Amino acid sequence: MALPDPARRLLMEHLGRHSLIFSPNLLDTNLVSGQADPALAQAQIVFGQPDPRALLDSPNIEWVHLTSAGYERYDNAPFRKAMLDRGTIVTNSSSVYCEPCAQHALAMMLAFARQLPAALLNQSSSRQWPAATLRADSRLLRQQTVVILGYGHIARRLVELLAPFNLRMIVVRRNVAGDETISALPETRLAEVLPLADHVMNLLPGGEATRHYMDASRFGDMKPSAYFYNIGRGSTVDQAALLEALRAGRIAAAYLDVMDPEPLPPDHPLWSTPNCFITPHTAGGHDDEHLNLVRHFLDRLEEYESGLPLLDRIM
Amino acid sequence: MALPDPARRLLMEHLGRHSLIFSPNLLDTNLVSGQADPALAQAQIVFGQPDPRALLDSPNIEWVHLTSAGYERYDNAPFRKAMLDRGTIVTNSSSVYCEPCAQHALAMMLAFARQLPAALLNQSSSRQWPAATLRADSRLLRQQTVVILGYGHIARRLVELLAPFNLRMIVVRRNVAGDETISALPETRLAEVLPLADHVMNLLPGGEATRHYMDASRFGDMKPSAYFYNIGRGSTVDQAALLEALRAGRIAAAYLDVMDPEPLPPDHPLWSTPNCFITPHTAGGHDDEHLNLVRHFLDRLEEYESGLPLLDRIM
Repeated sequence: MALPDPARRLLMEHLGRHSLIFSPNLLDTNLVSGQADPALAQAQIVFGQPDPRALLDSPNIEWVHLTSAGYERYDNAPFRKAMLDRGTIVTNSSSVYCEPCAQHALAMMLAFARQLPAALLNQSSSRQWPAATLRADSRLLRQQTVVILGYGHIARRLVELLAPFNLRMIVVRRNVAGDETISALPETRLAEVLPLADHVMNLLPGGEATRHYMDASRFGDMKPSAYFYNIGRGSTVDQAALLEALRAGRIAAAYLDVMDPEPLPPDHPLWSTPNCFITPHTAGGHDDEHLNLVRHFLDRLEEYESGLPLLDRIM
Repeated sequence: MALPDPARRLLMEHLGRHSLIFSPNLLDTNLVSGQADPALAQAQIVFGQPDPRALLDSPNIEWVHLTSAGYERYDNAPFRKAMLDRGTIVTNSSSVYCEPCAQHALAMMLAFARQLPAALLNQSSSRQWPAATLRADSRLLRQQTVVILGYGHIARRLVELLAPFNLRMIVVRRNVAGDETISALPETRLAEVLPLADHVMNLLPGGEATRHYMDASRFGDMKPSAYFYNIGRGSTVDQAALLEALRAGRIAAAYLDVMDPEPLPPDHPLWSTPNCFITPHTAGGHDDEHLNLVRHFLDRLEEYESGLPLLDRIM
C-alpha cells in the first residue's frame, strides 16, 4: 500500500538497522492484493498486502505484516502450512481497525434507534417537522437483544462500548472458547438465538467458510422488527436473500458497510431499497489511519527484535 | 397531554384511592402548555403540562407533576415563591427523558465521527463509492475533548455512555457543586475551555438565564474543527450567529435537535446549510414513552403517599 508522506517518514525514521525496499507497484488501498513483486526475493520482512503466491515463492521471508484486519486471501490450508513449515510469522493490523469498526457499528445501531436517516431524508427533501412520527418510531438501546456473529477484536471492543447500555448480548462463534466476556454459543445453535435478536451484528471474516453465511433461511429466522448490520465482509451475505427479506418486511432494516462486489454498482437495487443503508467500506477509516498502521508495525518490529510474542499474530 | 390508550389504562388501574379528572382540552404534545382549565380547582394532584397562571390560582393543589424534562414556563421567581409559600411540590419527568436524550446525543457524535450523513446523502443521490474521501474524513471518538454545557440528568447519563471511549470530558455549569463525576468548571471559565473542545454538547435548559447563551462570541471561541450539538432548548442558541459560524467555517458542523421556533419553517436557512443537521425535537422520543411517563408518575405517587422524598423534585 502507498503510504502518505507523514506515515512513510515515521516508518523510515524508526527502522533502525533495517533497510527499506519499496515495492514498485504500490496501491492506494489495502483492500486488494499487490502484484507479484521481484523485491520480495530480497526481503526478510514484508509490510503491506503482498501477493500470496509470491510469498510462497520467497523462502527468505521471515515475517509478513498485513496492513489490513481481514486476511482471507492468505487464510487457506496450503498457505498456512507453507508458513508453518518454514517458520514464517504472519501478523495483521486488527488492533488498528477494531476501534473504528466498533465505533462504526455502534453509530449504525444508534442511527437506527434515533431515526437519524429518516430525519436527514426529511431535511434533504420537504423540511417538514415530523416530530410525532419520528418520536413514535424512535427506540432505545435498552433491554434489547444483540446477537453478534464472530468474536474477534471488533466484537470484543463493541461489547465494551455497549457495556453502559442495558442490553442482552450474545455472541455466536465457530467454537466457544470459554473466555468470552458475554454469553457465547457455538454456531450450531444460531437458529435458536436469531429469533430473539433485535440486532444482528455480522462481524464475520470473508473466505469460503463464511460465504453466504447469512442466507434466506437465516434472515427468515430473524424477527420482522430486527435490524441487520454488516461490518465484516460482503461475501458473508447472500445479497439477493437480504434484498428479498428487506422488501418483504421480514426484517426491519439493514445497515451495511461491506458489499459484494465493491464498489457496489450504482444501479444495484440495495442502494434504492428504502430500509437499506450503505456506507462505502468506511468502518475502518479514521484520522491517522496510516500513521497508526506504521506505529502498529513498528511496535511489532520491536517485539520481533526482542524475541517477544507478536501481537495480532494470525499464523 | 393526551395519553394513548395503554398509558391511560395503566394510569387508571394504579391510582388506588385517587380519582382521575381529565382536562377537557388535552394536547397531543407535552411541549406546549395547556389552556386554563376549570378542573384544576377540584384537583390536589396535577399530572401534565398545566398552565402556570392557573396553578397560581388553584391553592388546593398539593403536587404538580410535569410530563416533560424542561420546565422553563414554571422556572421563575414568583412561581417558585408561590409554590414554596403554600407548600406545593413540583416534580418533572427528567428520569424518563435522560436515557433517550443521552443516546441521541451520542448518536449525533458518532454520526459525525463515522460520516454517516455524507454516506446517506451519497446513497440518496449519485450512488458512487466514495470510500477514500469518507475514510479520510472519518474520525474516532478517542483522545478528543468534549465540553458539556449543563450538568443535569442527561449530562450525567451521557458521561456514563461515553466512559468506554478514551475522551477528555469537561462540564461547564453555573455553579460547581463538587459532586461531578468529571472535570467541572463554573461558567465564568467557559472561554478557557471552548477553544479546547472538539465537541461542544449544549444540554442547557431554556429560560431567560440561558437565552442566546451560545452567541457569536462563544462560537468564535470554538475551533474550526469543532462540532456543536444542541439537545437542550432552541432559545439557548443565537441561530443567526450559529448560521454565520457554520457558513464561515468557524466551526465544522452542527447537529441540532431543538430550534427556535419549532417547527422550524421549511425555508429557514439552517435547513439548507450543508454542515448543519437537524432532528425535529425527537431526542426524548422512545418506544413506551407514554407508558414510561405514567410509570414514573405512579412511582412518585407511591413516594408521595409514603411521605418519602420525591425523585425529580424541582421545587
